[in-house]
Amino acid sequence: MTEPKQLAVQALQWTGDSLKVLDQRLLPETIAYEDYRDALGVAEAIKTMRVRGAPAIGIAAAYGVALSVKQHCHDRSVNWSDKVFADIERLAASRPTAVNLFWALDRMKALLNSQPEDPVAATQALAVEIHQDDIAANHRIGELGADIIGGAKGVLTHCNAGALATGGYGTALGVIRSACRRGLNKVFAGETRPWLQGARLTVWELAQDDIAATLIADSAAAWLMKSGAVDWIVVGADRIAANGDTANKIGTYSLAVLAKQHGVKLMVAAPLSTIDWNLADGGGIEIEQREPNELLPDSYNQESLVSAWNPVFDVTPVELISAIVTERGVVLNPSENGMGSLKL
Amino acid sequence: MTEPKQLAVQALQWTGDSLKVLDQRLLPETIAYEDYRDALGVAEAIKTMRVRGAPAIGIAAAYGVALSVKQHCHDRSVNWSDKVFADIERLAASRPTAVNLFWALDRMKALLNSQPEDPVAATQALAVEIHQDDIAANHRIGELGADIIGGAKGVLTHCNAGALATGGYGTALGVIRSACRRGLNKVFAGETRPWLQGARLTVWELAQDDIAATLIADSAAAWLMKSGAVDWIVVGADRIAANGDTANKIGTYSLAVLAKQHGVKLMVAAPLSTIDWNLADGGGIEIEQREPNELLPDSYNQESLVSAWNPVFDVTPVELISAIVTERGVVLNPSENGMGSLKL
Repeated sequence: MTEPKQLAVQALQWTGDSLKVLDQRLLPETIAYEDYRDALGVAEAIKTMRVRGAPAIGIAAAYGVALSVKQHCHDRSVNWSDKVFADIERLAASRPTAVNLFWALDRMKALLNSQPEDPVAATQALAVEIHQDDIAANHRIGELGADIIGGAKGVLTHCNAGALATGGYGTALGVIRSACRRGLNKVFAGETRPWLQGARLTVWELAQDDIAATLIADSAAAWLMKSGAVDWIVVGADRIAANGDTANKIGTYSLAVLAKQHGVKLMVAAPLSTIDWNLADGGGIEIEQREPNELLPDSYNQESLVSAWNPVFDVTPVELISAIVTERGVVLNPSENGMGSLKL
Repeated sequence: MTEPKQLAVQALQWTGDSLKVLDQRLLPETIAYEDYRDALGVAEAIKTMRVRGAPAIGIAAAYGVALSVKQHCHDRSVNWSDKVFADIERLAASRPTAVNLFWALDRMKALLNSQPEDPVAATQALAVEIHQDDIAANHRIGELGADIIGGAKGVLTHCNAGALATGGYGTALGVIRSACRRGLNKVFAGETRPWLQGARLTVWELAQDDIAATLIADSAAAWLMKSGAVDWIVVGADRIAANGDTANKIGTYSLAVLAKQHGVKLMVAAPLSTIDWNLADGGGIEIEQREPNELLPDSYNQESLVSAWNPVFDVTPVELISAIVTERGVVLNPSENGMGSLKL
């Protein structure tokens, strides 16, 4: 099997002094990086969705902590670590749903609490390790997922769980990349309102990798399934509870219910860092609500009788999931088999 | 019960010499009418979706025939009616799915074939009658639908089956208008990609009538249903087969499947002119496919590996429909009860 091509455009690039963040709000028209040299900037980049996707958010936050240590540690004041921990709080408050964010910050905090000799070098090294581990996990997830999808005639994905949402290669799109190298040739993507991650990011990212993709309106997914064109839906995850309930982009739950009714299977592809073992089930997952103006035409002002309900994520019950794929292995029918095999 | 307020903005206004068509592509930012004085212009207005909605398309086409007769008849050439029938063919080719278009053209053709003494006056009178009958039908549909919805705590609609899509008052929005006058106070609308009829037309039209509405992304409907906020989905129709299978805006089938799984009921509200008695079931309904560029960002050019699948309608099997409401009466559970009671 040939080595997968490195995607030309990466969401996150560590320079040693700064984190270059691809502004994903401008894609596909414009490829522009912004250079962040402190944690506040990174927190803002996450909050404003310049960088998005649960694994990428976690990686960016890790680099944010490294930048904070670099900024505050060299003045050798006694309370430099207080400043770093305040920055960590700000990073933690940037977005509420992706658990990878808290997982990465917890790893950075544990490192700091171990009082390494060279905090600057140590935190940078750990952030780079988190980034590299994520890329490696994605490749493993891609191969494991492709093993399951086998000779699928068509696959539908939602949102962007690709190289842009991760360290590189992608989770759901990692599976699709690996499956395409084995012969899959029909990939559909839902456009994913309101941010259009499918239209702006997923089909663009796949085309960069020479993979043809067909965009659909989100509401056309059921009609597509009825046509028989797809036999798997492959998505990423923002948080997976200990029982397998999965929070992901709004519309995933809809696809899961529709898939069940059409005999289509649903795969959740995510690194272990997405699993929140402290959460028994999906009922406890905080669902971020974003501004109504992401949906409303500008002409509706605040006095208008028009409002909007804009949850960013929904929770898919584990009963509707056919396979959860991580770098440590696969759980088929997780509602029957449990998630225990993924725990160390 | 007080008389319903006349909506300030109407999709179609007949001046006696011309048909004024509200350009719905510009709403809600701009209210602009274009004045059409011949059938070709009306056909173009339908094709380009300046006017849309099955009943409104039928009414516009009827006025188009009246304008054609006015244009061609007065020169008293022997073949003026050939020119009119050629215009009728052009109107029939403007959009394929809405059966009201063919129904209205058939009525105009039958009138012309009866060789009325004053063809200009007769065709104008019939077009006005078709328009007025549609408004009256909408009011009747509204009241009958509101009888069924009763004390619903919330209702979700899709696309725009409102005053803008009909002669006035609306079918699905007619039901919602009547229900709101009886106490319904929670109305949700799907934004309805790719044309955003929900965002641009439905919530705007309702607000004009002092009805508050909450917009959602189409893919959030399942999550909304799971929250328990709605117990009815109310939609219009573009064509209803003799068995009750219903073609309507893409996404309606999705809502129907999701509704069934959540114990939510689905009402189809449409005038009798939407029923195609010649079609045994929905399998024979032609589904219009529109251009991929309605979905694709401009930056994808024709050489791109990115394409789009853009069906405008889907077909909901009658088994998923709880009630079909027409001006002649209601069929509850049409898959069990049949549609016979709606036939004369």
